[in-house]
Amino acid sequence: MADFPKLTAALKKRAAQIKVLLMDVDGTLTAGGVTLLSQNDGTALEIKTFDAHDGQGLTLAHAAGLRTGCITGRESPALLRRAREMKMEFIYMKQPSKMHAYEEILRKAGVTDSAVAFIGDDLPDIPLMRRVGLAVAVGDAVPEVKETAHYITKNLAGHGAVREAVELVLKSKGIWAEMIDKARA
Amino acid sequence: MADFPKLTAALKKRAAQIKVLLMDVDGTLTAGGVTLLSQNDGTALEIKTFDAHDGQGLTLAHAAGLRTGCITGRESPALLRRAREMKMEFIYMKQPSKMHAYEEILRKAGVTDSAVAFIGDDLPDIPLMRRVGLAVAVGDAVPEVKETAHYITKNLAGHGAVREAVELVLKSKGIWAEMIDKARA
Amino acid sequence: MADFPKLTAALKKRAAQIKVLLMDVDGTLTAGGVTLLSQNDGTALEIKTFDAHDGQGLTLAHAAGLRTGCITGRESPALLRRAREMKMEFIYMKQPSKMHAYEEILRKAGVTDSAVAFIGDDLPDIPLMRRVGLAVAVGDAVPEVKETAHYITKNLAGHGAVREAVELVLKSKGIWAEMIDKARA
Amino acid sequence: MADFPKLTAALKKRAAQIKVLLMDVDGTLTAGGVTLLSQNDGTALEIKTFDAHDGQGLTLAHAAGLRTGCITGRESPALLRRAREMKMEFIYMKQPSKMHAYEEILRKAGVTDSAVAFIGDDLPDIPLMRRVGLAVAVGDAVPEVKETAHYITKNLAGHGAVREAVELVLKSKGIWAEMIDKARA
Repeated sequence: MADFPKLTAALKKRAAQIKVLLMDVDGTLTAGGVTLLSQNDGTALEIKTFDAHDGQGLTLAHAAGLRTGCITGRESPALLRRAREMKMEFIYMKQPSKMHAYEEILRKAGVTDSAVAFIGDDLPDIPLMRRVGLAVAVGDAVPEVKETAHYITKNLAGHGAVREAVELVLKSKGIWAEMIDKARA
Repeated sequence: MADFPKLTAALKKRAAQIKVLLMDVDGTLTAGGVTLLSQNDGTALEIKTFDAHDGQGLTLAHAAGLRTGCITGRESPALLRRAREMKMEFIYMKQPSKMHAYEEILRKAGVTDSAVAFIGDDLPDIPLMRRVGLAVAVGDAVPEVKETAHYITKNLAGHGAVREAVELVLKSKGIWAEMIDKARA
Repeated sequence: MADFPKLTAALKKRAAQIKVLLMDVDGTLTAGGVTLLSQNDGTALEIKTFDAHDGQGLTLAHAAGLRTGCITGRESPALLRRAREMKMEFIYMKQPSKMHAYEEILRKAGVTDSAVAFIGDDLPDIPLMRRVGLAVAVGDAVPEVKETAHYITKNLAGHGAVREAVELVLKSKGIWAEMIDKARA
Repeated sequence: MADFPKLTAALKKRAAQIKVLLMDVDGTLTAGGVTLLSQNDGTALEIKTFDAHDGQGLTLAHAAGLRTGCITGRESPALLRRAREMKMEFIYMKQPSKMHAYEEILRKAGVTDSAVAFIGDDLPDIPLMRRVGLAVAVGDAVPEVKETAHYITKNLAGHGAVREAVELVLKSKGIWAEMIDKARA
């Protein structure tokens, strides 16, 4: 995992307010590969690869009281299983537009934009990133997404980018060291 | 995704005329891995990994009115499913020679060579690349293919090479910014 | 495989005493991807990728008389099959805390902490790494794990890190060259 | 694909005599990952990833009259299917020692050591590499294998190493350009 960039006071202030951490899936929580297994009946099953370090980070986030979730245009049992393993509360699949899901999550969580972080990598993530309190682009996001972000991770999608975003939030809240101590106790 | 190289006037002129964007599959639309899953009955099923950014690019190309397609020597339900997700119109699998499929696409699309772009990576792609108006080699193509190309992508196959070719065409047509605005609206 | 760093006398002394080589799985014996295959019934199957060089290394370790094993929070037939192929004696899956498994292995093997090496990559590995005689962090471990380690591999997880740890132990015991000669006889 | 190193006269002489091109599988014809898919019945199925460029190279070798084959300790329908697609004539799986298979191939092909090339990556390949006329180590072979090789590929296993070995042989025979011309005709 790459070193952590210096955090500005303005960024820390944004990150310290986050209560809900949302993210895109393909190219954000995964490395961006869309993998399909051909079946003999002419259909194909979806394979997804998540990152073990991201998973530890999201479990840590959950333990620290952050609520987490994902919003994606695709649908797969693979994502569903992994999202549950990582204690995600909000799992929105098959969303043609992400804004509708986002607003439903705001209502359910009882928070406003400033308490939400969103991590994304491509054009459909931009509308959401313009609304949330903390917009994070993964290190290999497209240029237009990087321009929209408050923070660009040093780590790449599917290789620690989400873990880095979790660290950003927990460090800004001043509870990272405490969570680490618990995790390695 | 790597930065975009400067485009010459001659290249822009070629790219601005493209109406049909065709491509090879293995090593062009995928990273070049041929992945097989062993079955207990002694057969094997094919797994293919596509790139989420490439997919967004092809969806954008479709929205911009470009017609897209692929020509490959192999056949798999995985490709078929992904090609449909990305709104491809011309899907030619199991083609021992690519020229026959190419000429059929020309007839169906009602265009001539100068309106077609082809993206490839290996020797069997060269005959087609010599005919089309815009020949694109992926960044990790073999040397002989790179020598034949009008444009070599900075991005690698299965990691944004096709997205970069889409950008090249839409930017040369002067409609990239407009498409981006729509996509992130 | 990257070059081997110089070994200090203190490190060699630790490594020479090792009789049992234990390790984490995801992100240590694999590259850290958690890969899931969607099924039509809404469940997902787990896919794991191990490294051929690591496998040869563990087979060599077994031939040299080292006892090997893994402790992981997850459970999968893929791991079970691979662990057996690599002649692992201690296979502990589905362990919420790794310490319980560790102490059971100590009893079964009839050794104390100083005769055990543990290879890890993330926070849950730290308590074990603080106890064992030789704590090894893979090259892409999180910073907190690297700080706890006696040795950080140059190779990355799932790409030779475990092989490097095996070499470290066998070289420190002065039996690496002999094992190589047997293997290539 | 990386650039091709300069060939010495001695190396060309060795390579020009090759009639049979043999190779290891895991870590040579694949990138070295051993990938297993867990099944609900507690067993696991093997997944193998081959390289499209290697495949084109082996097809080209076959067209040029070279006889090709593989010798491996593992067994999988995935390898069997791919080996046939690439027109391999000698397919030896489940070989505890590779020498027995090698000698059977010599008899079947009616050639002596000097007409055989072998490509490998790890310790069990060394005995064979010491006998054949041309011993090739993939770019990411272990140090002991590199020391045994007449040629070390610039490309890595599963990413063009085998293609490079095919080029080495066909170029040394002075028929590479001719084969390329046929392939792209």
